[in-house]
Amino acid sequence: MTKMELDSQSSPFPKPIVLLGSIVEGRPNFFTVAWFNRMSRTPNIWGACVGKARYTLKGIKENKVFSVNFPGAALVVKTDFCGIRSGKNVDKSKLFDLFYGEFEAAPMIRDCPVTAECVLHDLVDVSSHYLVLGEVKHLYSEEKYMTNGELDQKKMDLLIFTKPASQYWTLGEVVADAYSIGSSLDQID
Amino acid sequence: MTKMELDSQSSPFPKPIVLLGSIVEGRPNFFTVAWFNRMSRTPNIWGACVGKARYTLKGIKENKVFSVNFPGAALVVKTDFCGIRSGKNVDKSKLFDLFYGEFEAAPMIRDCPVTAECVLHDLVDVSSHYLVLGEVKHLYSEEKYMTNGELDQKKMDLLIFTKPASQYWTLGEVVADAYSIGSSLDQID
Repeated sequence: MTKMELDSQSSPFPKPIVLLGSIVEGRPNFFTVAWFNRMSRTPNIWGACVGKARYTLKGIKENKVFSVNFPGAALVVKTDFCGIRSGKNVDKSKLFDLFYGEFEAAPMIRDCPVTAECVLHDLVDVSSHYLVLGEVKHLYSEEKYMTNGELDQKKMDLLIFTKPASQYWTLGEVVADAYSIGSSLDQID
Repeated sequence: MTKMELDSQSSPFPKPIVLLGSIVEGRPNFFTVAWFNRMSRTPNIWGACVGKARYTLKGIKENKVFSVNFPGAALVVKTDFCGIRSGKNVDKSKLFDLFYGEFEAAPMIRDCPVTAECVLHDLVDVSSHYLVLGEVKHLYSEEKYMTNGELDQKKMDLLIFTKPASQYWTLGEVVADAYSIGSSLDQID
């Protein structure tokens, strides 16, 4: 067979990129996370994996709320900065134009096409990382990212992260519609 | 402000697509999951969210191992089929050319550019779904998906899922290199 074994410590698949927002030691802070996804349908729970020593965890634990901000390609420099520099050492509170919804401790980034306010649901210990589970309470966007009243991925132009080459990408082209194309394989008895 | 509130039950961001493989009631079965990501660095733990009533869970719980298969665009029809039809009702064991590594109960799909064998690490109850945590024991690919000995995302052409329009996409273009471009914002004292 032509299959070969690779380094089992890697994870070579595309990942969404988010900026987790919280208030830490009195000021807004943002941390870039690619190990993120939805975790439950009802309620709508999202999970972000954060290294146990991260500055961001302090704010999330204290306030029990946080924001999730989805950056587009235009924010790639600031997004990378928030991943490689810790709020312990640099002040990220002036990096973005911020807005707030229901929660004072969930600062949101105005220039992100989609943002959410989450209430901490649970912290799960997963070896080297905590899985921060948050229930989505409010979701925000703008008309300019929509087509016919619905969010349009091409207009949002959200960042996606890959390995082994550490790169940010955007979406390319639609391959097919989901929940439909597969039915062509149904067998006719 | 121009921000508007959207349905807080949605999750409008790009997600990786995987086919979870297991042996259920004696035969290979595959289930499509988009709520998937890495969860820990050391050990390398991946997590997949699976609805509690899913057929696939039965095999994973019994065997304590499973496979993760990353389909490329060429497999979009079969990938969608595995998401919309349950192994309770259809036999998916002949849908793909399979291969095996260390574990008999972790069938892998030969035509997927990357596949992995995982050992069940934990099952976390997250409301409507279980988070299936698996430690990656072996990772497989082929030379044809590589450039200079490293996996090449363009050659793998992995599927990505989006909402609110339920669509499969592939990656577009590289926006920037990660862990580097952000350093341009470092302040010079």
